[in-house]
Amino acid sequence: MFAVTILGNNSALPAYDRHPSAQIVTIYDQLLLIDCGEGTQMQLSRYKIRRGKLNHIFISHLHGDHYFGLIGLISSMALLNREQPLHLFAPAGLEEIIQLQLKVASTTLPFPLIFHPLEKEGLILEDSKFTVETFHTQHRIPCWGFLIREKKDPRKVDKEKAVQHHIPSAYYQSLKAGYDYTSKDGSVIYNDQVTIPNSPARSYAYCADTLYDERLATIAKDVTMIYHEATYLNGMEERATARFHSTTSQAATIALKANAGGLLLGHFSSKFEELHDYLKEALEVFPNTQLAIEGVTFKI
Amino acid sequence: MFAVTILGNNSALPAYDRHPSAQIVTIYDQLLLIDCGEGTQMQLSRYKIRRGKLNHIFISHLHGDHYFGLIGLISSMALLNREQPLHLFAPAGLEEIIQLQLKVASTTLPFPLIFHPLEKEGLILEDSKFTVETFHTQHRIPCWGFLIREKKDPRKVDKEKAVQHHIPSAYYQSLKAGYDYTSKDGSVIYNDQVTIPNSPARSYAYCADTLYDERLATIAKDVTMIYHEATYLNGMEERATARFHSTTSQAATIALKANAGGLLLGHFSSKFEELHDYLKEALEVFPNTQLAIEGVTFKI
Repeated sequence: MFAVTILGNNSALPAYDRHPSAQIVTIYDQLLLIDCGEGTQMQLSRYKIRRGKLNHIFISHLHGDHYFGLIGLISSMALLNREQPLHLFAPAGLEEIIQLQLKVASTTLPFPLIFHPLEKEGLILEDSKFTVETFHTQHRIPCWGFLIREKKDPRKVDKEKAVQHHIPSAYYQSLKAGYDYTSKDGSVIYNDQVTIPNSPARSYAYCADTLYDERLATIAKDVTMIYHEATYLNGMEERATARFHSTTSQAATIALKANAGGLLLGHFSSKFEELHDYLKEALEVFPNTQLAIEGVTFKI
Repeated sequence: MFAVTILGNNSALPAYDRHPSAQIVTIYDQLLLIDCGEGTQMQLSRYKIRRGKLNHIFISHLHGDHYFGLIGLISSMALLNREQPLHLFAPAGLEEIIQLQLKVASTTLPFPLIFHPLEKEGLILEDSKFTVETFHTQHRIPCWGFLIREKKDPRKVDKEKAVQHHIPSAYYQSLKAGYDYTSKDGSVIYNDQVTIPNSPARSYAYCADTLYDERLATIAKDVTMIYHEATYLNGMEERATARFHSTTSQAATIALKANAGGLLLGHFSSKFEELHDYLKEALEVFPNTQLAIEGVTFKI
């Protein structure tokens, strides 16, 4: 299981029952929350997503529509007597705000809140089944994107054949990694005799809020899915640039240059009640585009 | 027009589409927002309440379910290019939080945000048509209630009679205040010849979060309507006291002792999906009780 569920797809001003940025990435048995605009905890309830499975939260930047819901979510976890640690990856300034909010409420969290300030590009989380890297995006204030890569052995064991060759199951992990097997009598079983290639590891790039920036296409090269903001429609490039945002065609161009498998468009302006123009314009540049509709889960 | 519209009636943990505390008091042409839990700006949109008419916000205390929605509301006002001043009455600690949140976002508000720290009981706002007083309530952290009183002249002018007696309209304000009129020939027109008694000034006491505290009945003496929290049902007095909250009967007893015209019950625990027990229990003590249902406007 590797999928993303949209909780909020709107830009800063909530409108038309669209909410500020938040999405849940499900990867195997873990839930990762990326951004946490106001009302995210209510959206989690609405879509019946269990807060208890959430151990990692990533905040791209400190514009309120990306984090104002975080303190409410943390407070609710405390009221529900959460005990397991919560890891928070965010720009450094957020820690002081949270600590201040807990202090004025005389609240001591019943669980460890482990703050990981985003400081430089690269690997920020390594799990047994996935990694998360962060990268800069170009926005009005410091802003970070996140790249989640599934970890996958390059080969799968063909168990029938491995058994035929009397390879002990303790050696299977080495087979998956590509090693040959040397039996006790010295004969070599070549790796490709007992394994088949695994499907490629999947990946998801969340490009946060950003100007049109071709560097993102390099960072997200060959990802299975890219999320790119499209606050504005075509023809509004000047406004987009002035506000450090992107248009539909700019987002789709990044997906195209990245050779991404799919594009998820979000962060829609409150100016537009209808979203079909966003889709139409992006499809002209990049065919495999979908709108990040709230409540929908997209397989990666 | 003097009424209260409920935006949030739940205690800290949002549940069953009930939201954390927030209510709008409409008094003549002014909207006053009392408390501002997470999602209040969305609730304002949902119930089509115009943010532009909101010039005064009152925050009872710094538990998150009473203020986490404030920074989002302020940010949206900024995005909408509000220019008129916004007055914020709140415990002193809130100012630092807001300033920090604006700073990390590199946001400069396009309107004056005038912070009035709550420091002592008494008058905090005097308008031409109403006053707002504040008072302490007994909660785990410092907490303030608000008492809104309509200003009303004691008498109304009976225009037909005033004209018969040749009283100039410039003198009507004095008539309303109860003065007699002496005409140029020295004859006295007694006030009660040309005026009738006005209906009594209405008042609304918002008792915030609180323990059972009979002092509140004295403060809210004879109010037209009292809002009192009832987080818990009868039989949960011990828990209520431990958490500095009240039960239904405690809330109703305060309304009774205050000789209030009506009681509005709110701040319901997330333990209960159904609210009818709250009403039933309170009605046994105080007949004119209503539940603070979200989206409903109660005339004061």
